[in-house]
Amino acid sequence: MPTAEGFSRSQVSVHRQVAAKDPLLVVGLPGIGFVSKLAVDHLVKQVKAKRIATIRSPYFPNQVVALKSGRLRMFSMRFYYKKLKKRDLIFLKGDIQPLSVEGQYEVCSRALEYFGSIGGSQVVSMAGFAVAPKQEKAPTIYCTSTNKQFHARFSKLGTRNVDRAVPIVGMAGLFPGLAKAYGMKGACLLVETPGSVIDAKGATALVRLLGSVAGEKFDTANLDVRARKAEEMIRKLNEQASPEEPRAGESPVVADIIKRNESLSYIR
Amino acid sequence: MPTAEGFSRSQVSVHRQVAAKDPLLVVGLPGIGFVSKLAVDHLVKQVKAKRIATIRSPYFPNQVVALKSGRLRMFSMRFYYKKLKKRDLIFLKGDIQPLSVEGQYEVCSRALEYFGSIGGSQVVSMAGFAVAPKQEKAPTIYCTSTNKQFHARFSKLGTRNVDRAVPIVGMAGLFPGLAKAYGMKGACLLVETPGSVIDAKGATALVRLLGSVAGEKFDTANLDVRARKAEEMIRKLNEQASPEEPRAGESPVVADIIKRNESLSYIR
Amino acid sequence: MPTAEGFSRSQVSVHRQVAAKDPLLVVGLPGIGFVSKLAVDHLVKQVKAKRIATIRSPYFPNQVVALKSGRLRMFSMRFYYKKLKKRDLIFLKGDIQPLSVEGQYEVCSRALEYFGSIGGSQVVSMAGFAVAPKQEKAPTIYCTSTNKQFHARFSKLGTRNVDRAVPIVGMAGLFPGLAKAYGMKGACLLVETPGSVIDAKGATALVRLLGSVAGEKFDTANLDVRARKAEEMIRKLNEQASPEEPRAGESPVVADIIKRNESLSYIR
Amino acid sequence: MPTAEGFSRSQVSVHRQVAAKDPLLVVGLPGIGFVSKLAVDHLVKQVKAKRIATIRSPYFPNQVVALKSGRLRMFSMRFYYKKLKKRDLIFLKGDIQPLSVEGQYEVCSRALEYFGSIGGSQVVSMAGFAVAPKQEKAPTIYCTSTNKQFHARFSKLGTRNVDRAVPIVGMAGLFPGLAKAYGMKGACLLVETPGSVIDAKGATALVRLLGSVAGEKFDTANLDVRARKAEEMIRKLNEQASPEEPRAGESPVVADIIKRNESLSYIR
Repeated sequence: MPTAEGFSRSQVSVHRQVAAKDPLLVVGLPGIGFVSKLAVDHLVKQVKAKRIATIRSPYFPNQVVALKSGRLRMFSMRFYYKKLKKRDLIFLKGDIQPLSVEGQYEVCSRALEYFGSIGGSQVVSMAGFAVAPKQEKAPTIYCTSTNKQFHARFSKLGTRNVDRAVPIVGMAGLFPGLAKAYGMKGACLLVETPGSVIDAKGATALVRLLGSVAGEKFDTANLDVRARKAEEMIRKLNEQASPEEPRAGESPVVADIIKRNESLSYIR
Repeated sequence: MPTAEGFSRSQVSVHRQVAAKDPLLVVGLPGIGFVSKLAVDHLVKQVKAKRIATIRSPYFPNQVVALKSGRLRMFSMRFYYKKLKKRDLIFLKGDIQPLSVEGQYEVCSRALEYFGSIGGSQVVSMAGFAVAPKQEKAPTIYCTSTNKQFHARFSKLGTRNVDRAVPIVGMAGLFPGLAKAYGMKGACLLVETPGSVIDAKGATALVRLLGSVAGEKFDTANLDVRARKAEEMIRKLNEQASPEEPRAGESPVVADIIKRNESLSYIR
Repeated sequence: MPTAEGFSRSQVSVHRQVAAKDPLLVVGLPGIGFVSKLAVDHLVKQVKAKRIATIRSPYFPNQVVALKSGRLRMFSMRFYYKKLKKRDLIFLKGDIQPLSVEGQYEVCSRALEYFGSIGGSQVVSMAGFAVAPKQEKAPTIYCTSTNKQFHARFSKLGTRNVDRAVPIVGMAGLFPGLAKAYGMKGACLLVETPGSVIDAKGATALVRLLGSVAGEKFDTANLDVRARKAEEMIRKLNEQASPEEPRAGESPVVADIIKRNESLSYIR
Repeated sequence: MPTAEGFSRSQVSVHRQVAAKDPLLVVGLPGIGFVSKLAVDHLVKQVKAKRIATIRSPYFPNQVVALKSGRLRMFSMRFYYKKLKKRDLIFLKGDIQPLSVEGQYEVCSRALEYFGSIGGSQVVSMAGFAVAPKQEKAPTIYCTSTNKQFHARFSKLGTRNVDRAVPIVGMAGLFPGLAKAYGMKGACLLVETPGSVIDAKGATALVRLLGSVAGEKFDTANLDVRARKAEEMIRKLNEQASPEEPRAGESPVVADIIKRNESLSYIR
């Protein structure tokens, strides 16, 4: 049940209680190359993580989707939980990042509050780092953190430091940044990406690194397939956003606000 | 009396207490073809529903209307109540949808909170589904829902599922979507509409379906007349929005903000 | 001292307690023809009303003025109190109307809350009603109200009803409209104005009507002088807003936001 | 730990408790000529002031920086404390001013609340006053204040009154203005500046005046060096904002919002 604030604030609905042991929050939202979202979407499916909570927010679009099954689907971010060999993981999946800056801060704080409430104190986000394409075997992963010990843990697994100051835009930066205000440790993993729409190679590198963290060897075989499927969905969505396609509900004025959002998102 | 938040939030003024038995909320706001608003405005008059509450909101325009009678009229959404044969209905009528996405979420949550406070747990919204005009007898009505049982009830009455994913923009989608967060069941009825300004045919189809839900056969004879009247009102309002027409109050800068809103609304 | 909300909300600072007997709130903010502001500014001076409270708001510009006297002056709205023959009056003076719609609602609710806290239950606002210039002796004043008895009181003093529906934009409409939600009676007086920048004739008509309400005959001799002074000030402000004029503080990006506000305001 | 509001509001993290005796808050944020920021950045280093608190805000950009050291750096405002000969000083340093007007009010109120909580009641801000370059020895400093006694203290140290009304845009004006609502005394010092990007001469004049207040003679020798360094950083940042430069995280749509902010800021 939402708080007294109602949907003037984001609201977290908890579906099931978890007894997680020092869980690590792995944030996977859409961004450059979709590497972060692709990696987390893949892992949630791969390890069969259980959905434990949902964030709905007035900073998401005012839009739902009527699916062929008859189901109505809303924009949301969703928490999933899985106990792995070396580590309990909480995944945060999402369709979209809030478009307004204030909305990104607010949603981030609600997510961190929830994560804190289940005993979490470590957060890792991921982002694509757009660079000119290189012909190396695997893209480099850089790590930046608010905490030296936490940073060292990733360095040991092979991450590097950036060779000049790099701005990180969006929630991939806010999550580790605001984590500090909540007394948590935060890091962001930046994976090199050629900047293509959906970068399976970058996502694969991130999945392997997270495997090292969790003490598991995750299968990454079908990440390519997933990436191509996602590209296809985005193509379809863009078609749907065109005026010729059917659309229900409100008049075009407000619909325009929404169209801008669609390029940031893909729906699964 | 408004809460301590004042009009930094939407406020619900309750005019009379109702002892409703498992009421169904029927949302009728302006949107594509005005089918939803037209249907609910018609029904409220037809069944002589009683006004029970009013929502005023900072997300509505900063504008009132001086009427010929001397009365001052504000933008608002209004709840009406009527006990029918098979079902108690609560109608939500409104002049306008909040233009900002955040405002739509907030107003929706205030409406659902009020509806919950009088014992409601089922919500149905309606929207026009713009398609190329067909020469069939009655437009098809599609149903999408967050709840299987609730969806099945409408399917039994003849609604269909969409044949591809359809985005629903605005409060017609938010109402059933957010209802879930409040522990309620929600559905949206999408009626085919040619996209003309005021579509009496689509509204008639919705009124008939709601008649099946309520166990009544509603008269729809004068829906055409109502639709033509509404078109006339919109035409007048657009004239009034032109610079030659008299207007009172604030200087044009802020007035511009308002002008954008008028195309979404008609005043009755 | 501001509330825990700080300046994420408007704040009312109370300077002196008043024991007012059923006071009437007279709202005088800038708008078409500046008739409302001019009338209230004149009356406050004429009757030597005492300042009792100040509203500061995040919806006012982020700008202060360094005066020649060394004093720093902020944008604000100010309440003044005066016991007159037939009626206790509270005046609300202001430099500017909040530019955002949400801001106008919020500031209005804070003002009404304060007015309610000192026992007030009747509110009258004023606005210019832009019409083609007529050669009659005095401009007509129209009244629109949410309450029949309150409306009748003004009709007896000579106000008329509009002869077609007229939209009122801005806080002159919101004050009587929202008053109803606070259990108060509200009315808006619309005075015909040719739409010139500062209309002393319209303001004079309003001052005379308020005189009838308060049982006093207010001197209006120097309203013309005041109007010309105000025009001069606006001219100077516009010059100051030009890039050649000195200005302190922030860089031009944010300054642009402010420049738009200045046309709505004059500083006294 | 943030309050229940989370990052829908700015949050002050307190790092160490201070027992300050009637401290003076000296605000040093970016603005015209960067005189204020330059002066405070210089003083904090010069007197080795200790960091005591940090403000993070949803009104700052949704952006962090990955540094070469591996550290992740967020936009923030930071309080520093130093006991000097004649006066305890609290400095407020910041990378940026919130871009929205509402954000500037909100952040200002959070800063004043914190300052009040450690016993402070006097606030001085500084701003560049852009005038045509003059060939005099030192730029004139003007003072404007909400309090006569406080103003007199600066006049004794050589400040003057402006010779015509001057608007002050941004937080340099809001700090002394809102201080009054918190029962504090506030002043703004306006130093003449030719409007060049980074004006070491104006900053030097301000540092000397603050020296008189604190009873110390501050070294200003390397202010020129600091100014040139800052100019170099701004140049680099602007390069980084160009599309050819590497950048991580979110897609370009949101990144555009940020780019506008960068001209107001330099990162140290």
